[in-house]
Amino acid sequence: MTFSGRMIDTHPGTVAIATDILARCIDDCLSCAQACTACADACLAEEDVAHLRRCISLCLNCATICDATAAVISRTAELDRSLARAILDACVTCCAVCGNECEKHAKMGMEHCAVCEEACRLCEEACRGLIAAL
Amino acid sequence: MTFSGRMIDTHPGTVAIATDILARCIDDCLSCAQACTACADACLAEEDVAHLRRCISLCLNCATICDATAAVISRTAELDRSLARAILDACVTCCAVCGNECEKHAKMGMEHCAVCEEACRLCEEACRGLIAAL
Amino acid sequence: MTFSGRMIDTHPGTVAIATDILARCIDDCLSCAQACTACADACLAEEDVAHLRRCISLCLNCATICDATAAVISRTAELDRSLARAILDACVTCCAVCGNECEKHAKMGMEHCAVCEEACRLCEEACRGLIAAL
Amino acid sequence: MTFSGRMIDTHPGTVAIATDILARCIDDCLSCAQACTACADACLAEEDVAHLRRCISLCLNCATICDATAAVISRTAELDRSLARAILDACVTCCAVCGNECEKHAKMGMEHCAVCEEACRLCEEACRGLIAAL
Repeated sequence: MTFSGRMIDTHPGTVAIATDILARCIDDCLSCAQACTACADACLAEEDVAHLRRCISLCLNCATICDATAAVISRTAELDRSLARAILDACVTCCAVCGNECEKHAKMGMEHCAVCEEACRLCEEACRGLIAAL
Repeated sequence: MTFSGRMIDTHPGTVAIATDILARCIDDCLSCAQACTACADACLAEEDVAHLRRCISLCLNCATICDATAAVISRTAELDRSLARAILDACVTCCAVCGNECEKHAKMGMEHCAVCEEACRLCEEACRGLIAAL
Repeated sequence: MTFSGRMIDTHPGTVAIATDILARCIDDCLSCAQACTACADACLAEEDVAHLRRCISLCLNCATICDATAAVISRTAELDRSLARAILDACVTCCAVCGNECEKHAKMGMEHCAVCEEACRLCEEACRGLIAAL
Repeated sequence: MTFSGRMIDTHPGTVAIATDILARCIDDCLSCAQACTACADACLAEEDVAHLRRCISLCLNCATICDATAAVISRTAELDRSLARAILDACVTCCAVCGNECEKHAKMGMEHCAVCEEACRLCEEACRGLIAAL
């Protein structure tokens, strides 16, 4: 089990969400935030950086929002469902937009965009799963 | 003029949003993020910390989301309106929820909660203003 | 392989650091940031929250710094060694201080502090490993 | 007085640091983080983005570290001086490195780099001031 799952299981409070759904969402948000930070950096190192401006910008924003989402959903002691839903909605949006942009570059052979797209898709799906479970 | 306004005015790109509306929103997000971080810390130092759990938790989440919002709306080169709107919506929600919680404690004499509530209200209003201008 | 390792392997640039050392440090920083965020929240939910003030504060700071460190070391395109070393040094310090505080509470039976201490120790070690490899 | 100063003055705890030194450092870290986020974005929008790779990378890292520093020094309830010093040291380093890089581009007429350099220099100075006062 990852640290996020172990932290949920040792939390003194109770939250009516299955550990695996919550832990998966936290982990996928963290992985996506990191992949997006690294993808923006990899795009910056590409010869054709001028054509990757939008990808860099979306990756930076997706990293910012996934990171914030991971932190918010890690705080279950006083979970406010409206607030959790609002940041999860924003996370679904940024993962979809960033995943679509990375998909374009992945099709043209950019491997880091392919890996980043995969992280975005997983994160979007995990956020949808958590929204449904809230 | 604050740094955020000067950064907008020297940006090589153009964005169809008035500098003062965008700069105000960035600055109010930053102020609110900081006030919420400090208010969570001040609550932690109160003798009656046990009754401030929800306030601490909401302040931490509000700080996280305001900070993320400030970063996203500072990136105008490749502005994606759906993404900006999504994080601004989340910011409006967390500022309203956190502002309401701080208001309760402010009424009972907690001065840091009164200052934090003021920052939350200003930030919520500035985010609504930017959403209208997008 | 985790996403961080795959992002390193698909990066167009080259960095004279072994993938496994860098990927491990990124992953351990992310795990520690999340564990500390969750541990602060778990402490807040404890009946005896008044005795956990220092633990909450250190966990929040450790989360902040580990999160920043993960982002900085994920950007290898234009790696500045002095800057990377400076944030890794700060990360070593906060993991040591926070790990020591969590250890005290773990010994008194707080399981979430035990898990968090483990995450802090692993992260401190991984940061030391990366500093040595820079 | 800015929100950061008002939050210090209403904090129930006491910290042996003058309000103006601490508030200035918090505010300058926030301004620098925002200026660096915006400067990276402005560089990305420049025609000559390929020559600005290092500037973008350093601005992103400086934004990350200044933001972390602002949060850590906003938490005074259980101030750990070794931890505060460590992140302030990292902040001094990144502001110096990023300020030097922006200075080069400012001399070649990039106005956003000139504003960002100014924010970096102010932040570096404020961090040195706070380190001296710790």
